[in-house]
Amino acid sequence: MALHAEQAGTVVLTDYAWPDLEIERRIIEGAGFHLVAGASEPAPEAQIDELIMPHDPVAIMTCWARVSARAIAASPNLKIVARLGVGLDNIAVDAATRQGAWVTNVPDYCVEEVSDHAVGMVLAWTRGLIQFDRDVRQGRWDPAAARLRRLSTLTCGIIGYGRIGHRTAAKLKAFGAHVLTQARPGKQPDDGVECVELDELMRRCDVVIVHVPLNSETRHLIDARRLGLMKHGSMLVNVSRGGVVDTGALVEALESGRLAAAGLDVLEDEPNVPEALKAQPGAILTPHVAFSSDASLLELRERACEDVVRALRGEPVLYSCNEPLARQDRYLLSEVQFHADST
Amino acid sequence: MALHAEQAGTVVLTDYAWPDLEIERRIIEGAGFHLVAGASEPAPEAQIDELIMPHDPVAIMTCWARVSARAIAASPNLKIVARLGVGLDNIAVDAATRQGAWVTNVPDYCVEEVSDHAVGMVLAWTRGLIQFDRDVRQGRWDPAAARLRRLSTLTCGIIGYGRIGHRTAAKLKAFGAHVLTQARPGKQPDDGVECVELDELMRRCDVVIVHVPLNSETRHLIDARRLGLMKHGSMLVNVSRGGVVDTGALVEALESGRLAAAGLDVLEDEPNVPEALKAQPGAILTPHVAFSSDASLLELRERACEDVVRALRGEPVLYSCNEPLARQDRYLLSEVQFHADST
Repeated sequence: MALHAEQAGTVVLTDYAWPDLEIERRIIEGAGFHLVAGASEPAPEAQIDELIMPHDPVAIMTCWARVSARAIAASPNLKIVARLGVGLDNIAVDAATRQGAWVTNVPDYCVEEVSDHAVGMVLAWTRGLIQFDRDVRQGRWDPAAARLRRLSTLTCGIIGYGRIGHRTAAKLKAFGAHVLTQARPGKQPDDGVECVELDELMRRCDVVIVHVPLNSETRHLIDARRLGLMKHGSMLVNVSRGGVVDTGALVEALESGRLAAAGLDVLEDEPNVPEALKAQPGAILTPHVAFSSDASLLELRERACEDVVRALRGEPVLYSCNEPLARQDRYLLSEVQFHADST
Repeated sequence: MALHAEQAGTVVLTDYAWPDLEIERRIIEGAGFHLVAGASEPAPEAQIDELIMPHDPVAIMTCWARVSARAIAASPNLKIVARLGVGLDNIAVDAATRQGAWVTNVPDYCVEEVSDHAVGMVLAWTRGLIQFDRDVRQGRWDPAAARLRRLSTLTCGIIGYGRIGHRTAAKLKAFGAHVLTQARPGKQPDDGVECVELDELMRRCDVVIVHVPLNSETRHLIDARRLGLMKHGSMLVNVSRGGVVDTGALVEALESGRLAAAGLDVLEDEPNVPEALKAQPGAILTPHVAFSSDASLLELRERACEDVVRALRGEPVLYSCNEPLARQDRYLLSEVQFHADST
């Protein structure tokens, strides 16, 4: 068996965000491959390169660790780089494509979790749960101090209206909230959701929820100007990526009272948390766990491993994020690059 | 005007759970009556008696303070005792009925708030919001430690399926949760809600939410035996009255790990909070504010005052909780009592 596994090839798992590797071993080793795992905490890129390269892996799986172009180029038998998650910002996708390897992710394993997390943060604010729990534990019982909100009277805006945004909208509508989202050209609005321009959304909403992925267009999408459009005493929720929101501007908006609350699962410089943010009683802070539940982690791990096995067996993968170049195209590309380089 | 107000009669407000009396003055004094208010904090019964009796009030309004049979009997011109809230346990209702006075409440001003509060507590647990916020503020950022739950995979039981219970069920169903409620003879179950016996509900649910009023049948309805039926690692939410749950048994269930969490807006001996409960990280504690929001307080205060004005003008009240005896019946009753007493 060990010999067979060696012949079938090695799968390198760079890092993982759960306590054991039971599921990965069951699926990867069960299919006859050899699994080599780094530490659970993601190591720096150079260390990950060193972990990967000696194994000449047929597959690389990563959670948060960076999979570099160098590591990919040094793995001539590579068939797949699998992200245990959604975003691909830690993978050199182009290098994998040139190498003829699939890049996969697991696109929708945490739709319920992230939308639950967003709505949970909204309710934690409207019902004062975190501050009251803190008060009661400190011996303060003062119901007359409550300044709480009826969610059915509030307008909630969703920026990023994909799978997760749709679920967040459906959940908020069950509470009677009015839901706005960004107008997108050529898209029909859903029942009961009003489409408006982004700046109008910022102006009209009591709660703004950010669900967009991070890319060059969305970096600091929520900046000082847009925060300045928000209603006095409103709330911002970010359960996407820290870089979408300008942290400094956000802290200022909380300090000035323009924002009464901010529900933040992600931060620009996480795991570092600015002291000025911790000092804000209206901040609701969680450590990048909106994606996580026992059910979602099980789905994530199983589905990522199953796509790896598919790729290694030469079957079509379910969640491809690229179109790997075929062998002859790779040859042509290297010729083109040779000529391009030489001119 | 002052003379006219004196002639029209005095309304005594015993206590109030908000910062000012603007709404009460606008409606009560606007209708030509004189408003006398006690302190906002509810005084003991004897002090409330002394507040009420010298004024010979035509109406008494109370938030939490006790309106005694003595104070009512000493107010021969009383037309109405109005509760600023739902429950009537702080009003001598029979005495008011015998006196020919209406007893009113405001039955449904906080349906959204209480059901929001219950679902908010459930999400605070499934998403770990309170513990993670505490951790992050203390410098701990450890997403791999998360043991969170996907609400759509959970079964939630609602004990007390009235207006509020129905709204809580509808909100939970939007998250994909399976909802159980108690079977009630002759009642058809609602769409998507399964009716079972109470003990079966306790056994099958991941989350049990208590919405029943407190009376002799519901006192300690959730006792050590019923808590012992619950699933290991489940959650109890109480947003009704503290006396419905046996606090000692609840603390033991949290200490033993049978309950992973308890969302408690009410306590048996509130405002006193047992130290053993504060020591439980799985407890989510709020100071009897589930009813409260800016919108609900406005509704509560306006609707209670408007019913007082109706009663004082001889119009039918909207929210009567008794059938006041007419003058001739009161005479007959006193005759009967005279004979009963003398035999």
